[in-house]
Amino acid sequence: MIDQGREDGKMTTSEQNRPIPRIPKGFKDTFADDVVARRTMIETIRGVYERYGFEPLETSAVEYVEVLGKFLPESDTPEGGIFAFDDDGEWNALRYDLTAPLARVVAQYGNQLPMPFRRYQVGPVWRREKPDPGRFREFIQFDIDTVGTASMAADAEVCAVVAESLEALGLQRGNYIIRVNNRKVLNGVLEAIGLSFVDPEVTKARHLAVFRAIDKLDRVGVDGVRELLGEGRRDPSGDFTAGAQLDTRQADLVLQFVQSGGHDRAVVCAQLAELVEKSRVGREGVQELQQIHELLEVMGFDSDRVAFDPSIVRGLEYYTGPVFEATLTFESADQEGRRRPFGSVAGGGRYDDLVQRFTGTLVPATGFSIGVDRLLTALKTRGGAETAAWQGPVVVTIMDPHRFPEYQRMVTDLRTAGVAAELYLGAGNMRRQLQYADKRKAPIAVIAGEDEFARNEVSLKDLRLGRELAQTIQNRQEWLERQPAQVAVAREDLVSKIREILARAASSA
Amino acid sequence: MIDQGREDGKMTTSEQNRPIPRIPKGFKDTFADDVVARRTMIETIRGVYERYGFEPLETSAVEYVEVLGKFLPESDTPEGGIFAFDDDGEWNALRYDLTAPLARVVAQYGNQLPMPFRRYQVGPVWRREKPDPGRFREFIQFDIDTVGTASMAADAEVCAVVAESLEALGLQRGNYIIRVNNRKVLNGVLEAIGLSFVDPEVTKARHLAVFRAIDKLDRVGVDGVRELLGEGRRDPSGDFTAGAQLDTRQADLVLQFVQSGGHDRAVVCAQLAELVEKSRVGREGVQELQQIHELLEVMGFDSDRVAFDPSIVRGLEYYTGPVFEATLTFESADQEGRRRPFGSVAGGGRYDDLVQRFTGTLVPATGFSIGVDRLLTALKTRGGAETAAWQGPVVVTIMDPHRFPEYQRMVTDLRTAGVAAELYLGAGNMRRQLQYADKRKAPIAVIAGEDEFARNEVSLKDLRLGRELAQTIQNRQEWLERQPAQVAVAREDLVSKIREILARAASSA
Repeated sequence: MIDQGREDGKMTTSEQNRPIPRIPKGFKDTFADDVVARRTMIETIRGVYERYGFEPLETSAVEYVEVLGKFLPESDTPEGGIFAFDDDGEWNALRYDLTAPLARVVAQYGNQLPMPFRRYQVGPVWRREKPDPGRFREFIQFDIDTVGTASMAADAEVCAVVAESLEALGLQRGNYIIRVNNRKVLNGVLEAIGLSFVDPEVTKARHLAVFRAIDKLDRVGVDGVRELLGEGRRDPSGDFTAGAQLDTRQADLVLQFVQSGGHDRAVVCAQLAELVEKSRVGREGVQELQQIHELLEVMGFDSDRVAFDPSIVRGLEYYTGPVFEATLTFESADQEGRRRPFGSVAGGGRYDDLVQRFTGTLVPATGFSIGVDRLLTALKTRGGAETAAWQGPVVVTIMDPHRFPEYQRMVTDLRTAGVAAELYLGAGNMRRQLQYADKRKAPIAVIAGEDEFARNEVSLKDLRLGRELAQTIQNRQEWLERQPAQVAVAREDLVSKIREILARAASSA
Repeated sequence: MIDQGREDGKMTTSEQNRPIPRIPKGFKDTFADDVVARRTMIETIRGVYERYGFEPLETSAVEYVEVLGKFLPESDTPEGGIFAFDDDGEWNALRYDLTAPLARVVAQYGNQLPMPFRRYQVGPVWRREKPDPGRFREFIQFDIDTVGTASMAADAEVCAVVAESLEALGLQRGNYIIRVNNRKVLNGVLEAIGLSFVDPEVTKARHLAVFRAIDKLDRVGVDGVRELLGEGRRDPSGDFTAGAQLDTRQADLVLQFVQSGGHDRAVVCAQLAELVEKSRVGREGVQELQQIHELLEVMGFDSDRVAFDPSIVRGLEYYTGPVFEATLTFESADQEGRRRPFGSVAGGGRYDDLVQRFTGTLVPATGFSIGVDRLLTALKTRGGAETAAWQGPVVVTIMDPHRFPEYQRMVTDLRTAGVAAELYLGAGNMRRQLQYADKRKAPIAVIAGEDEFARNEVSLKDLRLGRELAQTIQNRQEWLERQPAQVAVAREDLVSKIREILARAASSA
């Protein structure tokens, strides 16, 4: 695959016309190991979701822009951030999340759907954002939602199902926490400090400023949030962020609220009730949290798995009640190499107004969305967690090209017996063939030359064992004499012997 | 979900602003049954592909337009047919197939990949074509390719792996056939009749006209092809298609070639050898078919699974050697209701020039692409074939809302035991709840009211059995008296009894 080019070093016309083999910025290719790890992870989550009675849905990648609407999560430029294209005078776009398509489906199919409609969907979403290292424009979300019920049981349930999914993936309790807050309680606090709805637009903007300040707690700490609630904050780089312009008393109350999370949900509820006692909507929010708490108790989910944390805000404008976030608490190195908690891998909340956008009728809904690629990174970062990897096939090498049909027959025998196997189809010598087998992560290479054929035998090279032994045997001479990872077996025992080696490897893994 | 609207019947401003919940033309939503059927189908094929030693790859949905190039399959407007959008001055587009991205990956990653590179990829592709009933702008392809070897063993293998996949899906031999031809033999025939390469462009256009005529054999029959090879053909609707302008002798030879397929691959090879004996490229093509034949013999694939059929052309311009098509031979009704063979569900061939486009260096490649949605339709059409369907969860109904935690505990008990279960979270009465359970395809509904709680029992309604019995029991009175599908069990036996019913249903299914 080396391009010889012209001898005079100049490009020919055809070279000039050649496209560069490259992928657009913010997109990536996923190779075997990651495909398998991701697929296995998705299967595990899917198993839990189905056990909870949720059914699959797959919507199209392309939607009308008006269907996606202005509800673009976690974006300050609500109309931007999508890949849109004109199609015969109508604007289409790649879906930005899986929630807007769900709302569209519920509005479109109406009572053809079972209601409540409990569905999960996993698939890519696309965001036209500035690509950063580790921040992609195409990524996979795994959503679970219940549409058509205002019952807090639905909210409790999606929290429980995500907690159970994380544990099914091998995360221990204490390594993750589902953190729950309620927008109504937040609004109650803002009412309590006098930021009420006189001019809805102005109020909304100030609310948003407060929410953003709270949302930065993890990053800037309590003092940072205090600055952001007040005049504003200058970060170490010198950049200034304008504040929410609260006075000291107001900021104190907000901070008291934000810090009232804790390990006992009932205690948090009691504290919050006191803080928002004068606000109707605030009391309603606390009552909802109380209901979620009681339902989680019945389901066996204590505060060590699902906790109440008033610092959880979530960026989405459309949340109307409970909001959730799944956080991984173990540390990993961030992009600057600092050790810090891994952070959020899933988020969600109740969005009672989203279907109403289409129909004018209230259809309450709640759901949780897992960032699949981010969670996969987390599981890999943690080491010990069970991410699956690609296992290559047995590679039958070709020592004597004239014997091709006999090699092919070995492959066929193995495949017929259910063993993944392939014939080397390249043009390399034995060394290249074994390198190839290694690159393919083959467990075993089958080798047969004149000697083997004469004795009606084949040699099996245990590549996995070979890789292990290569680390313990120091002496090259010893290696050559013992050839520890290679055995000769009768041709007729090819399949049974390979099965034996594979079984041994599987049980020791 | 009924929109009350304004009492005066006029639309309010907010109604006027409401987006219509609709999906763009040519796109579709896939609900639980089809998601499960498709997923199961994909898993089955994947199992076979991995047994043959192919590894997974997932590329991005978005590519640079220049990477997709002009190689748009089966399209007369090579530069059209894609969903493209400008991104900061560079044209991106949704992938049109999975072959162009593979060529890009091989060119981009070069020898970081094992070579030959044997990969499968399954995922959606997008085509901006006029949507028709049954013709979508987003559909799933399942591709398997070997890049980096000119060996006919790779071609034989992809034919074998697709045949084996179709059988793994429950298709019997005789219900499908993999049909193989070779572009080199086609070119040899054209050389033999004097359509040789004097002016490459003119020759190419005439070759294409001949290929198109041959490609219509299934639709217009031998006489129709004869017309298309000559002056042209007027179809029953009056539309005239210009012909390839061959004279009678030329057309006869092409027709002789086209009809030389048959049940014995060796015989077909002998006939073709005779037809193209004067053409070097033709002889090369026949030799390749001969090799494929011998390799398939070794692998145990006879002419009843993989046959040679010179009428197979395939639309793709970029094929350079063997071309393949998987055809289902059982009949189904077409859109006009006529019974006819189901037709093609997969196609492929050798494309030795595709990577060279990027690198200037020859990297031979061959592969097969299954149309997943089309194959799924075929399996469903055929009846008897094993398409899986969604199985709903056990639904615990709510007769007494004050007992909510007790119902929730039943659900938790079931889930903990690994039984898919859910609590009814809507607001309907018992009749509505049972309708809901039916709609969700629940196998069992759990019912508990005052009586049951007093006796520490629950009632289990076997909804599957109920649906069956409803068809045999004629008399409503008998139904009510026997209540055959409902049993009362002790609360503590809830899980074990439900497991028993589910096991019984599974074994009788």
